[in-house]
Amino acid sequence: MLLLRRCPRLARLCSINSHRHPVTPALAPCTASFSSDSDRGSEFRWSRRWTHAVAGLLAGTGAVLAYALHQHKAEKADAITGQTVDKLPSSSTSSSSTSSSSSSSSSLPIFSQDEVSRHRTLQDGVWVTFKGGVYDITEFVAMHPGGDKIMLAAGGAVEPFWALYAVHNQDHVLEILSEYKVGELRAEDQKKQQSLNPSDPFSSDPERHPVLRINNLKPFNAEPPPEILSESYITPNVFFFKRNHLPVPRIDPESYKLTVEIQGPNRERGGALSLSLDDLKNKFPKHTVTATIQCAGNRRSDMHKAKQVKGLNWGIGAIGNGTWSGAKLRDVLLAAGYSPDDANWARHVQFEGLDQDVAGTTYGASIPLRKAISEDGDCLLAYEMNGEELPLDHGFPIRVIVPGTVGARNVKWLGKIIVSDVESSSHWQQNDYKGFSPSTDWDTVDYKTAPAIQELPIQSAITVPADGAIVDRSDEEVTLKGYAWSGGGREVVRVDVSIDGGKTWKIAQLKSSDKEQTAGATAPPPGQAWAWKLWELTVPLPADTEEMEVVCKAVDSSYNMQPDSILPIWNLRGVLSNAWHRVKVKIQEEQDDQ
Amino acid sequence: MLLLRRCPRLARLCSINSHRHPVTPALAPCTASFSSDSDRGSEFRWSRRWTHAVAGLLAGTGAVLAYALHQHKAEKADAITGQTVDKLPSSSTSSSSTSSSSSSSSSLPIFSQDEVSRHRTLQDGVWVTFKGGVYDITEFVAMHPGGDKIMLAAGGAVEPFWALYAVHNQDHVLEILSEYKVGELRAEDQKKQQSLNPSDPFSSDPERHPVLRINNLKPFNAEPPPEILSESYITPNVFFFKRNHLPVPRIDPESYKLTVEIQGPNRERGGALSLSLDDLKNKFPKHTVTATIQCAGNRRSDMHKAKQVKGLNWGIGAIGNGTWSGAKLRDVLLAAGYSPDDANWARHVQFEGLDQDVAGTTYGASIPLRKAISEDGDCLLAYEMNGEELPLDHGFPIRVIVPGTVGARNVKWLGKIIVSDVESSSHWQQNDYKGFSPSTDWDTVDYKTAPAIQELPIQSAITVPADGAIVDRSDEEVTLKGYAWSGGGREVVRVDVSIDGGKTWKIAQLKSSDKEQTAGATAPPPGQAWAWKLWELTVPLPADTEEMEVVCKAVDSSYNMQPDSILPIWNLRGVLSNAWHRVKVKIQEEQDDQ
Repeated sequence: MLLLRRCPRLARLCSINSHRHPVTPALAPCTASFSSDSDRGSEFRWSRRWTHAVAGLLAGTGAVLAYALHQHKAEKADAITGQTVDKLPSSSTSSSSTSSSSSSSSSLPIFSQDEVSRHRTLQDGVWVTFKGGVYDITEFVAMHPGGDKIMLAAGGAVEPFWALYAVHNQDHVLEILSEYKVGELRAEDQKKQQSLNPSDPFSSDPERHPVLRINNLKPFNAEPPPEILSESYITPNVFFFKRNHLPVPRIDPESYKLTVEIQGPNRERGGALSLSLDDLKNKFPKHTVTATIQCAGNRRSDMHKAKQVKGLNWGIGAIGNGTWSGAKLRDVLLAAGYSPDDANWARHVQFEGLDQDVAGTTYGASIPLRKAISEDGDCLLAYEMNGEELPLDHGFPIRVIVPGTVGARNVKWLGKIIVSDVESSSHWQQNDYKGFSPSTDWDTVDYKTAPAIQELPIQSAITVPADGAIVDRSDEEVTLKGYAWSGGGREVVRVDVSIDGGKTWKIAQLKSSDKEQTAGATAPPPGQAWAWKLWELTVPLPADTEEMEVVCKAVDSSYNMQPDSILPIWNLRGVLSNAWHRVKVKIQEEQDDQ
Repeated sequence: MLLLRRCPRLARLCSINSHRHPVTPALAPCTASFSSDSDRGSEFRWSRRWTHAVAGLLAGTGAVLAYALHQHKAEKADAITGQTVDKLPSSSTSSSSTSSSSSSSSSLPIFSQDEVSRHRTLQDGVWVTFKGGVYDITEFVAMHPGGDKIMLAAGGAVEPFWALYAVHNQDHVLEILSEYKVGELRAEDQKKQQSLNPSDPFSSDPERHPVLRINNLKPFNAEPPPEILSESYITPNVFFFKRNHLPVPRIDPESYKLTVEIQGPNRERGGALSLSLDDLKNKFPKHTVTATIQCAGNRRSDMHKAKQVKGLNWGIGAIGNGTWSGAKLRDVLLAAGYSPDDANWARHVQFEGLDQDVAGTTYGASIPLRKAISEDGDCLLAYEMNGEELPLDHGFPIRVIVPGTVGARNVKWLGKIIVSDVESSSHWQQNDYKGFSPSTDWDTVDYKTAPAIQELPIQSAITVPADGAIVDRSDEEVTLKGYAWSGGGREVVRVDVSIDGGKTWKIAQLKSSDKEQTAGATAPPPGQAWAWKLWELTVPLPADTEEMEVVCKAVDSSYNMQPDSILPIWNLRGVLSNAWHRVKVKIQEEQDDQ
């Protein structure tokens, strides 16, 4: 514990420990034993998958030092054989909070969830719960092989995280945890489940991962922490931002029907086509498309900071990259009787969701017919997301995937498709999700003057480090990470990154997968680059300043650039916030041991 | 003359007299008599066509005042019946230059072209030549119904302008001109023709309109003055910017052959298709597309001003909007045997020009196959430009029109088309016409790292007023004009204009033709908006400043915006210069009569 206390540097690293660092000679032996097969070292022999996921983090100084600390700890643990499960809370625990709970049948104190929730920082102590136990893992944070990701669970349960990272389901992980047990969770909090209020239209909403940052609870709108976005090229389903306009409908996949209607002048039709989920899965070829979906409101908080806007205060996480599988919208339209002649009158394809408000109004949107029917448009009626059944929050059983197009048109819980001469009449098509001039305010806005947002403009953001992060001068360099994407299938061809607020620029390395890029990697055909690129850049820490302003800006294959600043693109709804992204990072000299 | 001298305001108006102004009561009678049928008024009864072309100018104060002046003049002229053609130069001529020429058979002095050329401003006097006569039209400039357009001919011949504006071919126009005769042009200058040097590879280049601003003579690269661009929705052929890479080839339309070759693995072909000009005109349906063509280097001078670049110093005029007619590239490729199976290996369609350097290297470029073969791509093999035979400078007899794509790929004097798996190997595809990071310089540039420019990003510019123009405080308002365009068929949906350097914005009115816009005007299908929009905005003059910084920025249908500033998009070749366009305008109080 003292050892940790003497390393304030470690604490700081928790907010930014994913930068690269050359291993200094003094630490090299630790690195060597880390990869050894000794019994003690084996506690950190993670699965290949895990290793891959946290490779960037493990390369950091933090992990190296953390491992040294753990060795120290493990040596002590060896000396106290058997004392692994019901260890009493140590008096040296950094969290000095006194339990107000009465004693129970266990010899350990009882804590309420509220008390646990108060322990979310290294200063207050980092507590987590697991199967009714309360654990003070403050000391372990710096040793966690997954780096500061562990902080995401601070003050709550670890189960949702462990469920995602199967590497934790090993005895030695439980053993390590047991060392930190400080109490039991109050019985009523253990039993506490999301209370289902039958009169609440949101009562059937699914559970969500607690790591999500909630912008609005009902309807549910939440985004992952930025650093998760750049951790994997494909965004895991649970971390993928959720943007619901209405309660999540519970749809019985057995009785689900999708209606496809082709309106048209003087057209005799035998009624609309009705397709079951089974039809969609079996009567049409299955196509898979990797596509990024971004909410029009992504980065609204940046715009809001510049000047107030109306809308959910999204950070930079209202974007994700998924692999979607389903029937081609084109194939379904053709099956419904669409013919090239329909292009003479039809202009739009409308989608109606099965999610509805109390008045029965359903979510709706439309896209240009050309996008829907084009061979190259790659629009899907998706029933799978990242190889799994489409999750409830993402539109189970069917959602439309309109690659390159704003999230709002990728209608979830799809109930009806209409080929029409007009756009969807929904509020979300006609009024919302449109861009206006900075001079337009709520008194002067005329919704008809602006087109509905379809393709989105070039975008990029910095995911690591976070704004306000601290890096150590002695690290000498820092690795910056982020994402970049453009709508309309325009490929991101370059990301420029500045560490001096935009005065000078360096070119970031682009990644189109989690694998090492090969020189001969096939670029997507022009106009079909639906997926984002992750970017990374390691830069030496500038010698002459204590603060770096990191800025990124991306360029797409049409050489569209992001605008420099926010105010000139400000709009009353705070959509299309794609000015250069900026974060400020402090560079501090390593503090002396106390 | 004195009257003019007493109106310094008029002189200033010449640099910006196209703003609107409410007719003040004092001037209203003049306006009334302007539209009367009196003999004197009839001198300005222009044809309907001309009236239309200069409508905006006629509405200005300048024209109203000018007419008042002309009336005064005309009254004087009436008193001197018969003295119309050989009027002696007045000693009160504002240009005090003394002729160095000896007297000739005429009673008027002889001037050399050099001497005439020195009279291009109101300060030095404005001289023009017409059929061997030299005319000092300084006094007439402010009265010209076509406004300051007359200044384009200053120091040179008026014939090229009159050839364009047939309204001048009227007796009373000649009468007016005759009043200003001051001398004769030296015989050798009259006879002087462009000397044809047979050893000069550019000797067969065609004649060009003298109004063009020449950025390079050989090869010929020139652009029209900005104000001409916003004068008509369709840019007249002679004013359309010329961007030649090599000498203009003289091609016999009778023997012209276009070769179409489909390369391909293991493909047995009966040789390439060869098409005559007649074949292209008669064996394929004729299609017409209105499309804007912009040079990648348009507005390079703005970038050069910020930091030196390498390339022709284009102003804002390397862009034009034309109506192109010809065979669809798609139809010709299909006729040459292209089949959908070819999409399995083919990626590009290459074009070879018939223009070549001394070593026989021809101009070349390529576009993505998808653009070339798409029904919606609207690529043409054009033989007409604005309803006329394709001019020599624009690729006679055939040029490729690739709507939405940088000018460099719209290959002129087309000799060969090749469907291929690779891009054109030409210097212009592989090295030139690519965008790089501001951090890339001539020492570090690696051409392979950047994609060839195809679709261009959103662009806009201010054509009126010119940078440095002066407006009169008493005018109370000023009309700003310009163009906006985006590549890839993305429609311009909004132009924001600022008169305070970008602090606040107003929305300009957009025009998609020279006619009044009707509410029900059909927008082009999404992704097929190939033509620019002209924009216009009349704003009150700000009361609290003597200088306005006018700024414009456009938004396209994918909500791409122009970047704010130039340095962050600077690139070593100075291409893709699309930051906000800015001009500074001085507002001055009317000076007292002297």
